[in-house]
Amino acid sequence: MRMYDIIKKKRDGGRFTGQEIRYFIDGYVKDRIPDYQISALLMAIYFRGMDEEETVLLTEAMAASGEQLCLAEIPGITVDKHSTGGVGDKTSLVIVPLVAASGIPVAKMSGRGLGHTGGTIDKLEAIPGFKTEMTMKEFMRSVKRIGIALTGQTGNLAPADKKLYALRDVTATVDNVSLIASSIMSKKIASGAGRILLDVKVGSGAFIKDMEQARKLASIMVKIGNAVGRKTVAVISDMEQPLGYAVGNALEVREAIDTLKGQGPEDLRQLCRELAAVMLVLGEKAADTEQGREMVDALIASGKAMNKFKEFVENQGGNPMAVEDPEHILPRAGKIYEVKASSGGYISRISAEAVGRSAMMLGAGRATKEDTIDLSAGIVLNKKIGDAVEKGEKIACFHYNRTENIREALDLFKQSVEICEQPVEKRETVKDYIYK
Amino acid sequence: MRMYDIIKKKRDGGRFTGQEIRYFIDGYVKDRIPDYQISALLMAIYFRGMDEEETVLLTEAMAASGEQLCLAEIPGITVDKHSTGGVGDKTSLVIVPLVAASGIPVAKMSGRGLGHTGGTIDKLEAIPGFKTEMTMKEFMRSVKRIGIALTGQTGNLAPADKKLYALRDVTATVDNVSLIASSIMSKKIASGAGRILLDVKVGSGAFIKDMEQARKLASIMVKIGNAVGRKTVAVISDMEQPLGYAVGNALEVREAIDTLKGQGPEDLRQLCRELAAVMLVLGEKAADTEQGREMVDALIASGKAMNKFKEFVENQGGNPMAVEDPEHILPRAGKIYEVKASSGGYISRISAEAVGRSAMMLGAGRATKEDTIDLSAGIVLNKKIGDAVEKGEKIACFHYNRTENIREALDLFKQSVEICEQPVEKRETVKDYIYK
Repeated sequence: MRMYDIIKKKRDGGRFTGQEIRYFIDGYVKDRIPDYQISALLMAIYFRGMDEEETVLLTEAMAASGEQLCLAEIPGITVDKHSTGGVGDKTSLVIVPLVAASGIPVAKMSGRGLGHTGGTIDKLEAIPGFKTEMTMKEFMRSVKRIGIALTGQTGNLAPADKKLYALRDVTATVDNVSLIASSIMSKKIASGAGRILLDVKVGSGAFIKDMEQARKLASIMVKIGNAVGRKTVAVISDMEQPLGYAVGNALEVREAIDTLKGQGPEDLRQLCRELAAVMLVLGEKAADTEQGREMVDALIASGKAMNKFKEFVENQGGNPMAVEDPEHILPRAGKIYEVKASSGGYISRISAEAVGRSAMMLGAGRATKEDTIDLSAGIVLNKKIGDAVEKGEKIACFHYNRTENIREALDLFKQSVEICEQPVEKRETVKDYIYK
Repeated sequence: MRMYDIIKKKRDGGRFTGQEIRYFIDGYVKDRIPDYQISALLMAIYFRGMDEEETVLLTEAMAASGEQLCLAEIPGITVDKHSTGGVGDKTSLVIVPLVAASGIPVAKMSGRGLGHTGGTIDKLEAIPGFKTEMTMKEFMRSVKRIGIALTGQTGNLAPADKKLYALRDVTATVDNVSLIASSIMSKKIASGAGRILLDVKVGSGAFIKDMEQARKLASIMVKIGNAVGRKTVAVISDMEQPLGYAVGNALEVREAIDTLKGQGPEDLRQLCRELAAVMLVLGEKAADTEQGREMVDALIASGKAMNKFKEFVENQGGNPMAVEDPEHILPRAGKIYEVKASSGGYISRISAEAVGRSAMMLGAGRATKEDTIDLSAGIVLNKKIGDAVEKGEKIACFHYNRTENIREALDLFKQSVEICEQPVEKRETVKDYIYK
């Protein structure tokens, strides 16, 4: 087999065989095939695409390119959750303990944030003492003992994805649905979960901008999961405006705790309820999503979800008082600035991307991997799309310590908000479910 | 300027600016831009193409990437000639002295053969003593003194082309008309000729298989030449069957000498007459091609062309007796095998590519750059397409010393020849002229 022929085949619109895919993935990970042949191949894939079967084979080859976690020793059906990334997306903080409280073991690996979207690991680190680095042994022991653990990616999982992604990132070959799907799913598969829930974000604040694309990506990921025996369901949710009110690490933890208490913003509560209900079905605790929703409501009302969160925080070294009294235990920014409405009417736009970038400028996120985060910084909205607003009314609070980018952040934020005279409909948070 | 944006622009169907083209050519030659970004760009160009203006700008940037020969000190209008490569293509051996005999200075750089097509440098080395390596000083002095010199590529001409071609060769990005045109023309422009004649070969033995593609490539090359002030004309000629009868280095030199004597195969004679006539017009020695043809006939009939060839051979260290008595002075193979017709009728096919590969197996060409050539080996046809043949009649002679591949070469050759019962038309050698 020659790499040249594989490139030419895809260039001319051919289909890869499993043998060809394993040849180039294995060869690339082992440095036998150079970057310049892989990048030409990626560009050919960009133009010609891959069909479902090729995408499944690619995902399997990538998942098999390094270590693979085996969760077989954990009793019960493990269910993992993945979000394609959004602004104010703290759903994992809510649904991971919620689902664990139902008895479904959750062994989750998460990432850090980059750019205008946040990462669960950064958010959890806002809890004083919380450790997101665990050895494999600690991780497995925690899941077995209390049914829940969350860590940054450990071990050498799917190294082919890491290497391919770095190359795609510098050769303008990221935007291809098969490559995106196989990248996400290869990591999920290698990290061992038996069943997978995907939260595919769509809107100006997500990397997927329209529903057609979102359905396509969700559908291929669900097909990959099911094809490799990891039952997968995808929920498509709105990312036109930030999720909930809070954007910024400690601020989001507080909002997640509110939500675990049955309070919190309506859109966040609704999305968490739906995602958790589907996970309860996947984990075979609920017969259908309707029963799942009822169980979610009961787990919250009884305080069981909240207690599981506390147990989870304590187990990973975090101060459990942060859960009882987040106001005083979580880090707080030294400065607060209130943003007022320049006119009255109805909120018609709050760009998720602009709010995310604005919060990043305040210190809540990283522009580059090397940046350090101010865990206390961020933005708390007071209004969402469809809300009525009076001139001079508070529409958001900026929480910050670093002042150097405050003016720029404020300008960006103000440009991101639009107010119109006519009433505006509230946005639907959950847009679609993809089961196959 | 960022390479990422340049790749993305072409990926999305955009047009390069001159600044962008110079940025990536300069950056690549100076190793500031890595292979993997350039190969992704090349694949994007493969799919999106480049328009005429971009192709001209790319050619100029490549021509300017290294040394550029200045032929200004040579009096008169220098005319260069380039063939896109074929089997049995010994036209340069005929027309370079022919045109030089008219007083047009010819300062020509040529290449070696690879694969099933030959190179002029290899052919000339079949003449005992002939030196194809010259210093720049010797080269210029020869052109000034006797109006003719031919050398292998010297100096660091168009290094961008060398580097890009090597990358295209391993990433399946050779087959793009703009990249092919800019590769050929950048070398021609850097080697300094004032005017350029292109012989674009079309047919199964050429890398261009159909007329549409040939016209497209010829047209863009002519446009590039004219755009950079190097008046260019292209002739499209047939490469369905080998040109002339002889394929193999010494065998082709003999046939070229026959042609300079006014003998030689009809198709070769006709093509050389046309190419030389156009060169005489380009060099402003003839008012039009009709006058050019008359001059060519006169230069051959008077022996002036032949004398110029002798002078040329002697000047570069070759034995001039090879021109007078090629039979005895040129290397001859130890073994000859006559291939007979298996049936009677008319020759309907002699695949140029198969004959080229068959001759290569006898030792006449290189499969890899490291192979050594047997200058005496090759194939001499006795028939061409359209010729009548009787069963058992000789259709070709194999000349060879190496016996290891003789069976395979013979099988390939036999498969390449087809004989049918109905009369078959002879092929037109010159198929089109492209002036703009």
